[in-house]
Amino acid sequence: MPSLDLSQDVVTLTRALCDLESVSGHEGPIADAVEEALRRLPHLRVDRDGDAVVARTELGRGERVVLAGHLDTVPLAATPNLPTWVEGGLVYGRGTCDMKGGVAVQLALAAAVEAPVRDVTYVFYDGEEIESEHNGLGRIARTHPEWLDAQFAVLLEPTDGLVEGGCNGTMRVDVTTKGVAAHSARAWKGHNAIHDAGEVLTRLAAYEPRQVEVDGLVYRESLNAVRIAGGVAGNVIPDACRVEVNYRFAPSTSAADAEAHLRDLLQGFEVAVTDRADGARPGLDRPAAAAFVAAMGGVVKPKYGWTDVARFSALGVPAVNYGPGDPMKAHADDEFVPAHQVVEAEAALRRWLSAPPA
Amino acid sequence: MPSLDLSQDVVTLTRALCDLESVSGHEGPIADAVEEALRRLPHLRVDRDGDAVVARTELGRGERVVLAGHLDTVPLAATPNLPTWVEGGLVYGRGTCDMKGGVAVQLALAAAVEAPVRDVTYVFYDGEEIESEHNGLGRIARTHPEWLDAQFAVLLEPTDGLVEGGCNGTMRVDVTTKGVAAHSARAWKGHNAIHDAGEVLTRLAAYEPRQVEVDGLVYRESLNAVRIAGGVAGNVIPDACRVEVNYRFAPSTSAADAEAHLRDLLQGFEVAVTDRADGARPGLDRPAAAAFVAAMGGVVKPKYGWTDVARFSALGVPAVNYGPGDPMKAHADDEFVPAHQVVEAEAALRRWLSAPPA
Repeated sequence: MPSLDLSQDVVTLTRALCDLESVSGHEGPIADAVEEALRRLPHLRVDRDGDAVVARTELGRGERVVLAGHLDTVPLAATPNLPTWVEGGLVYGRGTCDMKGGVAVQLALAAAVEAPVRDVTYVFYDGEEIESEHNGLGRIARTHPEWLDAQFAVLLEPTDGLVEGGCNGTMRVDVTTKGVAAHSARAWKGHNAIHDAGEVLTRLAAYEPRQVEVDGLVYRESLNAVRIAGGVAGNVIPDACRVEVNYRFAPSTSAADAEAHLRDLLQGFEVAVTDRADGARPGLDRPAAAAFVAAMGGVVKPKYGWTDVARFSALGVPAVNYGPGDPMKAHADDEFVPAHQVVEAEAALRRWLSAPPA
Repeated sequence: MPSLDLSQDVVTLTRALCDLESVSGHEGPIADAVEEALRRLPHLRVDRDGDAVVARTELGRGERVVLAGHLDTVPLAATPNLPTWVEGGLVYGRGTCDMKGGVAVQLALAAAVEAPVRDVTYVFYDGEEIESEHNGLGRIARTHPEWLDAQFAVLLEPTDGLVEGGCNGTMRVDVTTKGVAAHSARAWKGHNAIHDAGEVLTRLAAYEPRQVEVDGLVYRESLNAVRIAGGVAGNVIPDACRVEVNYRFAPSTSAADAEAHLRDLLQGFEVAVTDRADGARPGLDRPAAAAFVAAMGGVVKPKYGWTDVARFSALGVPAVNYGPGDPMKAHADDEFVPAHQVVEAEAALRRWLSAPPA
């Protein structure tokens, strides 16, 4: 089993973690290495569930915070982008940005901060880059929700070193129009379902997305057709058309209310929900959150994309996204993380865990 | 080689032709049988090109007319619908309606009417039910256009025993909208190509198709989206959307003018023509056509779907569709032709070929 030295500098540790290739479904070796390294630290209690590893301080502090990150990556680039290499201060390779840089920060803190001012739970999980049913954080939330108990959580997904609070909810619906098939040379014997879908697109195009303030952050919503399909042949009047719509709604709106809003907007059309997930409030009113934001320099932005912070929110744990790496480089063939962002994230989080509660 | 008895009654002949299975691409045996039967008739000159057979009287009449039909069929039904069977006066089986009933009428006339008042060219061709490039009539028009010289042509495709004059032209275009991809959680960074396609559908839905009189028949046009596709994933703002549009236009409009009309209607959008074919005028002002209509009882309707009559029209030969069988039963699993329609078509055409020119 490869051994991880958690005392080395956090950039070298990032590279060591990336070079332990761990595409989703193959997280066993890296989970073993992480577990083994953490079990060598006497100040931590370590638990394991599948290929997820959870380590915690048990100092009886008044507050507990979570630092969470996933161990898996998307597949390597066509021209394999591992092992890692360094060029101009940037660490290149699969996983550097999404999100072994963040995982290295978690591990460095776990080893170095033996007596944090807040109890800390470090969560390392599998299956984030694939279908939701395989998500290790979701699995722990079902099987060991007590492992995730806390007043506040930080998910170390890449945010370019900014604090992004909470996240919008997301919903997908299929809007279907039905017609009557006929030969296209005798169109008047049928009814064109694609023509009917024009009104759906017109309403979506005219819709003005809301901007909603939640816990001091302004969440920008969006509502879009993301796919459309209709018709069977070049000489047949189409008897069905399906518009897939994605609605991103502020975390102050429940998925149920978002669905009602969407059904209202699309009144007269057949609407079927295929996917819906509540957003996550940033919870910046919590003391641990306020201290965190202060330690990070005070600037917080809303998160628009749905992330695993919502899994914490569903357990009543407000959460923010904060980590090294430009999110636009996640999954990219030229994926990289700036070395200085990894170093800065480790230093900033160390300040937060070491400073007395506000 | 199976032998065809052209002197038997036309319904029995229809069944014999159907039982000579001849799915497109496998017309060799039926073409051989047709050629052999025609060569036994001393009053006809017979030519062959591939699996097409052309027989003609050469009586030096002032007029020449064509009777044309294709030898191939679509594939058999899942529960094979051959050999043929008869039930309640209906002949069932693949090809009965489309169009061995019509071919039987051609062959019966070729054998029985030794001295028609108009010279007659009987055309039997292959490859009608598949891609246009395989169409035997189109091949003859390229390699031996003189074989098709005539003042008037009748295509014996099923029309339920009605005369359907000429045919509408047809054109297909792809209308494409272009956007800018972005994550659907940050839609404002992109531009939604599917939303833009809404305007295309709105214009199509609002369009009022024309009705155009040509040579005394009113051709009803139609303009429809027949297919639409856009989007790549449930979380991506679509950067392209394609609407396939089919325009059926009256035979008095050239394909070039139809294209100009369509481009005008869809101004502001990218339009690419993928397929276009001129229609066919019914040419009911020609003496042979007038005599034909009179022999059929005087009722003529316009043909809306594009058919091979347009191949005659392109050679300067006006043409009509007239044949036994309900066109809705062509290609159907329960394909059939009413026996009486086959008998009546043979009798009506025999009257026309035997009556002195008007």
